[in-house]
Amino acid sequence: MSKIVYILNGPNLKLLGQREPDIYGRDSLDDIKALCETACKQRGYALAFYQTNIEGELVDHVQEAGAKGAVLLINAAAYTHTSIALYDALKTLTIPVIEVHLSQVGKRESFRQISYVASAATGTISGFGAQSYVLAIGAALDALT
Amino acid sequence: MSKIVYILNGPNLKLLGQREPDIYGRDSLDDIKALCETACKQRGYALAFYQTNIEGELVDHVQEAGAKGAVLLINAAAYTHTSIALYDALKTLTIPVIEVHLSQVGKRESFRQISYVASAATGTISGFGAQSYVLAIGAALDALT
Amino acid sequence: MSKIVYILNGPNLKLLGQREPDIYGRDSLDDIKALCETACKQRGYALAFYQTNIEGELVDHVQEAGAKGAVLLINAAAYTHTSIALYDALKTLTIPVIEVHLSQVGKRESFRQISYVASAATGTISGFGAQSYVLAIGAALDALT
Amino acid sequence: MSKIVYILNGPNLKLLGQREPDIYGRDSLDDIKALCETACKQRGYALAFYQTNIEGELVDHVQEAGAKGAVLLINAAAYTHTSIALYDALKTLTIPVIEVHLSQVGKRESFRQISYVASAATGTISGFGAQSYVLAIGAALDALT
Amino acid sequence: MSKIVYILNGPNLKLLGQREPDIYGRDSLDDIKALCETACKQRGYALAFYQTNIEGELVDHVQEAGAKGAVLLINAAAYTHTSIALYDALKTLTIPVIEVHLSQVGKRESFRQISYVASAATGTISGFGAQSYVLAIGAALDALT
Amino acid sequence: MSKIVYILNGPNLKLLGQREPDIYGRDSLDDIKALCETACKQRGYALAFYQTNIEGELVDHVQEAGAKGAVLLINAAAYTHTSIALYDALKTLTIPVIEVHLSQVGKRESFRQISYVASAATGTISGFGAQSYVLAIGAALDALT
Amino acid sequence: MSKIVYILNGPNLKLLGQREPDIYGRDSLDDIKALCETACKQRGYALAFYQTNIEGELVDHVQEAGAKGAVLLINAAAYTHTSIALYDALKTLTIPVIEVHLSQVGKRESFRQISYVASAATGTISGFGAQSYVLAIGAALDALT
Amino acid sequence: MSKIVYILNGPNLKLLGQREPDIYGRDSLDDIKALCETACKQRGYALAFYQTNIEGELVDHVQEAGAKGAVLLINAAAYTHTSIALYDALKTLTIPVIEVHLSQVGKRESFRQISYVASAATGTISGFGAQSYVLAIGAALDALT
Amino acid sequence: MSKIVYILNGPNLKLLGQREPDIYGRDSLDDIKALCETACKQRGYALAFYQTNIEGELVDHVQEAGAKGAVLLINAAAYTHTSIALYDALKTLTIPVIEVHLSQVGKRESFRQISYVASAATGTISGFGAQSYVLAIGAALDALT
Amino acid sequence: MSKIVYILNGPNLKLLGQREPDIYGRDSLDDIKALCETACKQRGYALAFYQTNIEGELVDHVQEAGAKGAVLLINAAAYTHTSIALYDALKTLTIPVIEVHLSQVGKRESFRQISYVASAATGTISGFGAQSYVLAIGAALDALT
Amino acid sequence: MSKIVYILNGPNLKLLGQREPDIYGRDSLDDIKALCETACKQRGYALAFYQTNIEGELVDHVQEAGAKGAVLLINAAAYTHTSIALYDALKTLTIPVIEVHLSQVGKRESFRQISYVASAATGTISGFGAQSYVLAIGAALDALT
Amino acid sequence: MSKIVYILNGPNLKLLGQREPDIYGRDSLDDIKALCETACKQRGYALAFYQTNIEGELVDHVQEAGAKGAVLLINAAAYTHTSIALYDALKTLTIPVIEVHLSQVGKRESFRQISYVASAATGTISGFGAQSYVLAIGAALDALT
Repeated sequence: MSKIVYILNGPNLKLLGQREPDIYGRDSLDDIKALCETACKQRGYALAFYQTNIEGELVDHVQEAGAKGAVLLINAAAYTHTSIALYDALKTLTIPVIEVHLSQVGKRESFRQISYVASAATGTISGFGAQSYVLAIGAALDALT
Repeated sequence: MSKIVYILNGPNLKLLGQREPDIYGRDSLDDIKALCETACKQRGYALAFYQTNIEGELVDHVQEAGAKGAVLLINAAAYTHTSIALYDALKTLTIPVIEVHLSQVGKRESFRQISYVASAATGTISGFGAQSYVLAIGAALDALT
Repeated sequence: MSKIVYILNGPNLKLLGQREPDIYGRDSLDDIKALCETACKQRGYALAFYQTNIEGELVDHVQEAGAKGAVLLINAAAYTHTSIALYDALKTLTIPVIEVHLSQVGKRESFRQISYVASAATGTISGFGAQSYVLAIGAALDALT
Repeated sequence: MSKIVYILNGPNLKLLGQREPDIYGRDSLDDIKALCETACKQRGYALAFYQTNIEGELVDHVQEAGAKGAVLLINAAAYTHTSIALYDALKTLTIPVIEVHLSQVGKRESFRQISYVASAATGTISGFGAQSYVLAIGAALDALT
Repeated sequence: MSKIVYILNGPNLKLLGQREPDIYGRDSLDDIKALCETACKQRGYALAFYQTNIEGELVDHVQEAGAKGAVLLINAAAYTHTSIALYDALKTLTIPVIEVHLSQVGKRESFRQISYVASAATGTISGFGAQSYVLAIGAALDALT
Repeated sequence: MSKIVYILNGPNLKLLGQREPDIYGRDSLDDIKALCETACKQRGYALAFYQTNIEGELVDHVQEAGAKGAVLLINAAAYTHTSIALYDALKTLTIPVIEVHLSQVGKRESFRQISYVASAATGTISGFGAQSYVLAIGAALDALT
Repeated sequence: MSKIVYILNGPNLKLLGQREPDIYGRDSLDDIKALCETACKQRGYALAFYQTNIEGELVDHVQEAGAKGAVLLINAAAYTHTSIALYDALKTLTIPVIEVHLSQVGKRESFRQISYVASAATGTISGFGAQSYVLAIGAALDALT
Repeated sequence: MSKIVYILNGPNLKLLGQREPDIYGRDSLDDIKALCETACKQRGYALAFYQTNIEGELVDHVQEAGAKGAVLLINAAAYTHTSIALYDALKTLTIPVIEVHLSQVGKRESFRQISYVASAATGTISGFGAQSYVLAIGAALDALT
Repeated sequence: MSKIVYILNGPNLKLLGQREPDIYGRDSLDDIKALCETACKQRGYALAFYQTNIEGELVDHVQEAGAKGAVLLINAAAYTHTSIALYDALKTLTIPVIEVHLSQVGKRESFRQISYVASAATGTISGFGAQSYVLAIGAALDALT
Repeated sequence: MSKIVYILNGPNLKLLGQREPDIYGRDSLDDIKALCETACKQRGYALAFYQTNIEGELVDHVQEAGAKGAVLLINAAAYTHTSIALYDALKTLTIPVIEVHLSQVGKRESFRQISYVASAATGTISGFGAQSYVLAIGAALDALT
Repeated sequence: MSKIVYILNGPNLKLLGQREPDIYGRDSLDDIKALCETACKQRGYALAFYQTNIEGELVDHVQEAGAKGAVLLINAAAYTHTSIALYDALKTLTIPVIEVHLSQVGKRESFRQISYVASAATGTISGFGAQSYVLAIGAALDALT
Repeated sequence: MSKIVYILNGPNLKLLGQREPDIYGRDSLDDIKALCETACKQRGYALAFYQTNIEGELVDHVQEAGAKGAVLLINAAAYTHTSIALYDALKTLTIPVIEVHLSQVGKRESFRQISYVASAATGTISGFGAQSYVLAIGAALDALT
């Protein structure tokens, strides 16, 4: 049985910490990756951590996670709200899928109030900055057992 | 400084465990309360735990939490989607407010896709059954420090 | 097996007979209660008849009906059109639920053309004044057998 | 004064009992007609019972009912939701008009949530299978007196 | 070249004069036919005048008018607002097509504010009672020359 | 009793005959005025004929027509679709008001499918070019008697 | 004849003066009550002044005001925008009903731009802080005479 | 087992070849029938081929096809986009149902972008002129085996 | 510091007292002006009182009020609901702006439920007939101090 | 051939430099006129530069520009978003028409996201403050050659 | 002249046969490719068959097909419903373009009822599983001759 | 300080000059690049000029421009109207961002009337063909100083 936690990060998350820190916090994506690695290691899991600006590559990674992962965390950023392709990819998975957001999306623009990811996910955690990822790792691995 | 975690539960949650267990899980509200009490005690906090079917009483409790609580968790159930009164009450708080749901609301009927609570909350955790509450206690208390 | 017919009446129905008699008829709520008592007694059933202006108390009564009643009739008045809480409460019942209205709602304002109650009810009877209740008692008890 | 009860049945009701029995029940249209005949005879009324798949023929029958009938029951099936022609025809009647449905329409597809018939009818009875017709005969004839 | 004026009348117009005289006036359809016959004769034209409650028969008559008529007047009544079939039929004609209404449709219910007939017609005359027809005969025949 | 026919023309109609002749025909506004004068004189009426590009001046003229005119014809052009001010002005009149259009508005852009003028007018004549005015004079004066 | 001015205050108004003073001003609800008492006394009226967070209790108070009051002022706060129950209650009153708001609602969120209270009220006064109440008392009592 | 292919054609298809050949091609309905007969014969099937302008007669033919046919092809033309009655009729069939269109509907007016037929059909073939029918016969009969 | 109260009146208000007295009351605009003059004089203010049917002239007057006035009252009538130009003009003012209406706009047509004026005003007073102006003068001048 | 550049400015632009300088910049309309005069002179063109608050006068000027101008620049301000009359006027022009805005309209309120001017213009330049005009003069005159 | 059939497959189709076989059937994408190769070879055509999860690569392939292909078949999967980029690419082609779907899209979620591909395609074939491709090859090559 | 002008071109712009020249003009993308290079060189700037069909690569280039560029011009083509990812990327930039279009987008399909790019850009220039780019270079560099 798989011992890998997949974490996928969508467009613009590469610049985390620089971009609009009021909304997204001051942690860089590498900071978040480090936090996640620690959290996974504590639970005895390896981490597969990706970032891409390309919708279709997110779909590729989702399919890889479906084949090799124990659980999937996904912060699809802007594609959360527009990508039926991601929705279709996530629907095929049988492992737990957790939607993650750094900011509280429910407080933002109206075009961010639709989530294709949420409707294909096991659960959602949003608004806790980098902690959202750590909470989601715990929740996802708990859901396995 | 306050050492009380407020947890508010909205309409129909009294029947938890009996009602549509496929959606809401098999834990009763008392089971959830017990889980939360343990989680609070471990952190050195007391628990104020309410359930009411009446929207205006939820507003009362939110105001009480604003005056006496360290953090507020709220599972407003059906009122999540219709209550501007709750929104107004939550907006006045200066303590962390976490929106909690047992089920993954993003997968359900379209009239549940609007959340007045989300737009007045610090963060949201949904879809993990009773674990949603435990995760939220941790997240809320972490947010304090 | 239960021998109680539950009949719940929502906001403003206390004033029946005084308020807009062109729409709601001249019978008072007591007149209707008396009609219903007779109809129940003829069938060998007791009557539990409530009126409240508070949405959450209607939810309470629905839950009580689910625990103790043979059938439930509900004229939720204004809450018919806005209450997801009532919808959630009614969905948990396994006994017959009949939506009742004194007036023909289909002829009235556009905001009354959505019915959360209808989508959680076994059947609907509207437009016959106080007779709507008597017809519904018959229909509900027939549905039991 | 007329002693005829008119009952009109719209498209696809000819196949009743065969078609989607989960939704419409197992009674054939002939079974329903027999039930109605008995109910009318008990009240001293004759029955004029029609079924047609053609919207314009329903309009014809409505006009005939307006000229010769004591009351009109109409289950317009699919035309309920689209026919302004039926609405115009029903609005001209001065006799009681009862909208009847076998299934609980309020639970079905969103395109069935508009009813042109309801907004031109005295009352509505839906969701009781063949019993909907019998209840409506009683309610309509009571409305005459 | 054809010397026939086609005039088509849609659902419920058979009852004209009896039905809601405040909206449609007191002239019967025969009165209107007589007025039209006089107006056509004065211009040296014969009249083909039909009424049907059936949408598909209106389509038949439109096609007949396209083959044999000099001009077409159509009061499609309720089908004005819902019939794409009529729209398709009218679009194939090369003769003048005049939309006619007895009442001022622009003052009526919102569902009458869409006109498929208008978007396939040469012109529209509405609101003048039976005179609408006479004006339209003149306008249509003028348009021929 | 007044013997004046008021005809009001809205924005851009000054350029008639030059502008988009496929839609509006080749007659200039002076040509139309001449046609109207002849038609009025034959009936024994004087003509008050205005054109303005300013919405508020149309309102002024409507009020003048209400005080001094026997009937009012109005081709409000673009203001037809946006002017509540015109609607309010026309609603105060007790003389016949005829909405006139040169082109068949029902065939044009979707933003022209709302008519505030139609909902305050006695009747509508559209699509007959300059003849629309002549037909409307006849219809309006007939409506007086 | 009654000499009581009813003033009803909806959800969250208990906290006035503490909550978002930029929007609602610095007066507490007790300050407002004192202002109103003075204004009533000057006019020779007693004051019945209520605040509740519960929609159904507002309905109760409206019914009480209908039975015992000379005029009714209502600041329904969040329920202004969602409560058909309040609308139904207010429609039954025959005394003057004034809608009052502390803030200028027209400047706020889009979900506050619908007012069920406004459509059942005699008049509206909003945006003047505590003065809105005093102005409304004057206007309501003037309307009596 | 049935050896009959049912092909139903809706309103205005009688005029095929004459009407708007740019959109619908130059084949007449008889040409299409001949093509279909050949295609059926090659597969060992008889052909039942109908055209009607009347919605309710299409429903009749659908029901007949359900009772006697092996497969059903339907080009419902304008009724494709408006007929819930057809939808209800098609939903009762257990044989393959193929939606056919001569033109590419996806390129046409917005009111043609809803298809009640598509949501009750096994498959759709559109845009190939008369060839759409021949392809559909092949596809439908392949689906049988 | 300015001692002038500006009062602007939009389209159709010139005819006040004659036009639809059920909605607007029986006072003429001159009556209202006289009332306002008295109210201003009592407070030691002069009155600048305008009426125009032209949207752009209202904008002119708003700009003049911004330069020379102490406060501005505006009853923009029909332009209330459509004029972004007025909204832009009012937004530039730094003096108090009060929206005034004679009738209770919240009870009227749906197209009157949007107010561009309200979203640029300090406060709103509607529904008190001519008294709306007097109340607004008081409220505006109070707001100055 | 004409050697005049027409520049039209809509409502509220007279106050430029005073009004909301964060949005519109600090240049007055006279400053802009001076910049435009220089730019025109350099190219050998005269300048006709108008400002009006009245929609119909903008239409007048558009028609004048169509008759006498080489190119037309138009900053219709608030009328950009509501004026079908301007749209109709601009559509008749055969000279280049450039839509100009000082601010970046795409960043502002949702009701400014519709532009009737854009859909009748050759090109659009927005967001560069007074420079928008200078760029547009260059672009328009380049488009001539 | 080109002898290559282009077939493009969008996101998630790589997993065909594994993913939701109830909707998409049990054939893998390689199975479909093999079927298509046979069908092309029989007609004397080569096959260029691509799958990509990346929207922009689909655009690349469409452009390649436009340059080198005889016909294009495209199953754009999720991008069917959201990609204006694909629409723009397809609109530039002069070869036949066939929209293909394995499942009957008309039966699925509402967000799949918009097709940008359909509005830029010659024809559509959907609902026949892998056979959809074979039918489309035949139809596309027939359309060439 | 950076001396590089970034120009990004979205999907389908590679084919410029070949594709729909009526809309986009006859210049190829290389022609435009050459024009831009000249314009930049004259101002003492280097040019970084990209085209890609892939949304995520546009995001990459925007981020690169944010790090290395002096100004950014972006013609996002189809992604203009659908890409929240681009919006998020552009919002992080502190350099001037100019939205550029060859055609006048305001005249095209309704789905092109939303621009995510416009709401994150400093200014917009559209409708001048290749000149749009040259104007934008000037405007952007002027904005720097």
